[in-house]
Amino acid sequence: MKRAGRRAPRQSGSIAQAPFKQITRPYAAIDVISEDEVTAIHNAACRVLSEIGMKVLHPPARKLFQGAGAVVQGDMVRLDPAMVSERLKTVPRRFTLAARNPAHNLRVGGKDLIFASVGGPAYVMDNDHGKRDGTYSEMCDYLKLVQSLNILHQEGGCPFEPLDLPANTRHLDMYRAQILHLDKNWQTQTLGHARTMDGIEMAAIAMGTTPEGLRSTPTLLGIINTNSPLQLDIPMAEGLIAMADHGQVVAITPFTLAGAMSPITIAGALVQQHAEALAGIVLTQIVRPSVPVMYGGFTSNVDMRTGSPAFGTPEYTKAAQASGQLARHIGVPFRSSNVTAANEIDAQAAYESQMSLWGALMGGAHLINHAAGWMHGGLTASFEKLILDAEMLGMMAAYFDPIEVSAASLAVDAIRDVGPGGHFFGSDHTMRRYETAFYTPLLSNWDNHTSWLEKGGVQTRERANTVWKQMLNEHVAPEIDAAISEALDAYVARRVEEGGAPMN
Amino acid sequence: MKRAGRRAPRQSGSIAQAPFKQITRPYAAIDVISEDEVTAIHNAACRVLSEIGMKVLHPPARKLFQGAGAVVQGDMVRLDPAMVSERLKTVPRRFTLAARNPAHNLRVGGKDLIFASVGGPAYVMDNDHGKRDGTYSEMCDYLKLVQSLNILHQEGGCPFEPLDLPANTRHLDMYRAQILHLDKNWQTQTLGHARTMDGIEMAAIAMGTTPEGLRSTPTLLGIINTNSPLQLDIPMAEGLIAMADHGQVVAITPFTLAGAMSPITIAGALVQQHAEALAGIVLTQIVRPSVPVMYGGFTSNVDMRTGSPAFGTPEYTKAAQASGQLARHIGVPFRSSNVTAANEIDAQAAYESQMSLWGALMGGAHLINHAAGWMHGGLTASFEKLILDAEMLGMMAAYFDPIEVSAASLAVDAIRDVGPGGHFFGSDHTMRRYETAFYTPLLSNWDNHTSWLEKGGVQTRERANTVWKQMLNEHVAPEIDAAISEALDAYVARRVEEGGAPMN
Repeated sequence: MKRAGRRAPRQSGSIAQAPFKQITRPYAAIDVISEDEVTAIHNAACRVLSEIGMKVLHPPARKLFQGAGAVVQGDMVRLDPAMVSERLKTVPRRFTLAARNPAHNLRVGGKDLIFASVGGPAYVMDNDHGKRDGTYSEMCDYLKLVQSLNILHQEGGCPFEPLDLPANTRHLDMYRAQILHLDKNWQTQTLGHARTMDGIEMAAIAMGTTPEGLRSTPTLLGIINTNSPLQLDIPMAEGLIAMADHGQVVAITPFTLAGAMSPITIAGALVQQHAEALAGIVLTQIVRPSVPVMYGGFTSNVDMRTGSPAFGTPEYTKAAQASGQLARHIGVPFRSSNVTAANEIDAQAAYESQMSLWGALMGGAHLINHAAGWMHGGLTASFEKLILDAEMLGMMAAYFDPIEVSAASLAVDAIRDVGPGGHFFGSDHTMRRYETAFYTPLLSNWDNHTSWLEKGGVQTRERANTVWKQMLNEHVAPEIDAAISEALDAYVARRVEEGGAPMN
Repeated sequence: MKRAGRRAPRQSGSIAQAPFKQITRPYAAIDVISEDEVTAIHNAACRVLSEIGMKVLHPPARKLFQGAGAVVQGDMVRLDPAMVSERLKTVPRRFTLAARNPAHNLRVGGKDLIFASVGGPAYVMDNDHGKRDGTYSEMCDYLKLVQSLNILHQEGGCPFEPLDLPANTRHLDMYRAQILHLDKNWQTQTLGHARTMDGIEMAAIAMGTTPEGLRSTPTLLGIINTNSPLQLDIPMAEGLIAMADHGQVVAITPFTLAGAMSPITIAGALVQQHAEALAGIVLTQIVRPSVPVMYGGFTSNVDMRTGSPAFGTPEYTKAAQASGQLARHIGVPFRSSNVTAANEIDAQAAYESQMSLWGALMGGAHLINHAAGWMHGGLTASFEKLILDAEMLGMMAAYFDPIEVSAASLAVDAIRDVGPGGHFFGSDHTMRRYETAFYTPLLSNWDNHTSWLEKGGVQTRERANTVWKQMLNEHVAPEIDAAISEALDAYVARRVEEGGAPMN
């Protein structure tokens, strides 16, 4: 049979990729609960906030709540439902996150999606050396790959801790690396006032402005985790306040593990998640009305035999989609995640991530955090998982490219021309479309078994190893203005001199 | 922290499984095309059938079409749209498939789903011996596992060919094995009249009736593949006619690989799939009005570089969901599949199967064919993939168990009792629910990385190997009436004496 020939890669370098493009969801989100049930969860969360309240450990945060009409007794802050709904009115449904390269600016909200790389793990792993402490040099390699992978829209807050750098100044080196190695949008750290302000200062330098100038340009996204159940601790409260005060975006993300830090029932875990998220969202609007903010859903369950957290479970998937419904109910853009508890880059890692991705993408998430690279329940960033996830994200992006239905694509004439028993390989209808008709895989192998064995029987995790090394080898650094680079160096030098940020 | 204790397995044997139960989809199917686009594809398919037609190689089938008003010229059969829509009116939207054990009878249609095991591969594989020709003994082991796995509702037509048996009588041994090792519903072979009639005769014996008696009791399901593009060959036409004539069910399944046997555009491939499926469905209703029949969707794409078929691609997922819309448009129950082109039980096998499963389940499929065990693009049945798929199906079944929203599950009182900073492990609300709150995995491992390494760092494919061996070891054969067993033996002996079925 005549074959259509080798397909041209779509970018320079030997790895075929579609160009950088934000993904838009063309299909209706999956509703896993009814509108009445959404309302019941929302109302129960409002009862939790008004009858029980949040324990807020940071006195200035309590003062802000109190000034806005909350009832404060000791550490406890109670919010009445009218106050919550009044504050929700100022939350923007859509906004834009600016990137150093304006072509990489990101639309947040509506049907638009952002895929962010893994952020926050303590460890790194690859096939060659297993799991280990990370180094600055390896972290920079990981950032280069995040820049190179067009399917990733945002860097997720540094893939792992560079443990060879001192803890009090490490964040400064990380921010500089994020800015230099990427021209994409990047996530910042929000653990305490000093780290948060360093991120804001350095983002301002990168954007050629000042922290004051950044106020009207959302540029940084930071994750605020409540300390479930029902607590907001001092470092997170400081981060939230500094970010909101400077017009920057936080995603309020309770870590509600059903059966451990939240009720064992998914409905109950969602009530608690929703209450904690509402409290954080309200605080952002008290600090700065109309500042962009996101609703984070991270409800999963534990293994009741061992207490171990589980991810990408059926309960996780349902909770993600219900969280999307809750976020839409209050009109706040929604953050979900791509998660797995698997220990190896194997079938479990893939199916748990798939369950998470379908939960997130068909749950109407606007930000998929940890979309690529997350392993070991979030304790480890993996080089091979980065590639595996990039493949799965690319497939989802192609799935979100709707079927074209037109006279030409319906192909009645092509079917007539080929006729019964014929083949379409060499037909004009095929030849005009073969280069772009289908998703080109980054990682999948479609050889028949005999060919696959002849080529060495290479498994998916080994192919992923080859892909990231090749991609790193072909990496091209984004350009940066020398003056900006020098200003960043000067800022870092000064802050290192000052001793960096206090340890929490 | 107090732990809730080890969870009791839900069945005898050491492997925890939920009991046999048919799955019901509680969420709306995903619509990937608009109603107008569904109509456009349907109308284009009607144009294909009326203007181009199907090549029907079996003269009696052509005669049946002609007698019902089709235009027949040579081998070509053209159907006008009015005739098609008239014949569609008699297709039942719902029916029941009877099993030897009535507790395993299957509802077809509506929101109900059937998970069928892999059927039809030429080869078998496992971790211990790789890919190889199958034997009768191993085929029986596989059938025992299909019986043991509660998540599987139907046996899929024998997992692989027992190549140690003579080809002309092999089907008789296979049918007997399906009946003896299973009390679940099973799929039959429809390649030619003789094989089809042997299945009907033996199913009648198993049900304690005659082929005549079976006419009013749909018991057998068989797959009819059109020979795409636009051909119905003699063996498949014979099978279709014999099955419909005896009140048994066929799933008309064109194998429309976009870019090879069908247009490269997914819309065009769907037009051709729909045309071929309609032709087969119409023929069943001509043979026997109101006989149950299913609409099979199997549209995928090829790798345009090599011509290799690809499965579980984004195009496959979209096509599966659009096929569900087309099937609902004409009111015919829908068959989809769980497919992969992967060569190893690794991440690719998992993510391609996940893409297929989400396509099928959220595409509103009523039958998921090859739901467990399919590898190598359908050329090989795998023992480990059977377990991997059973885990993924179990997860989907749990995902289809809706979130309970009630005063008790909303858990406001439990949240109050535990309070800020507390934990839910030992709370009454948790203790009352911990045994059934979450899906219990068959295969997933949630140990932390250190524990996992200490226990030997066992990957998912190796754990699957352990699970199937343990399950086989604990297998309990279903009971069968001795008279039925003897009658089956006698039937097989007589047919072997007669020389079995002619080779096609």
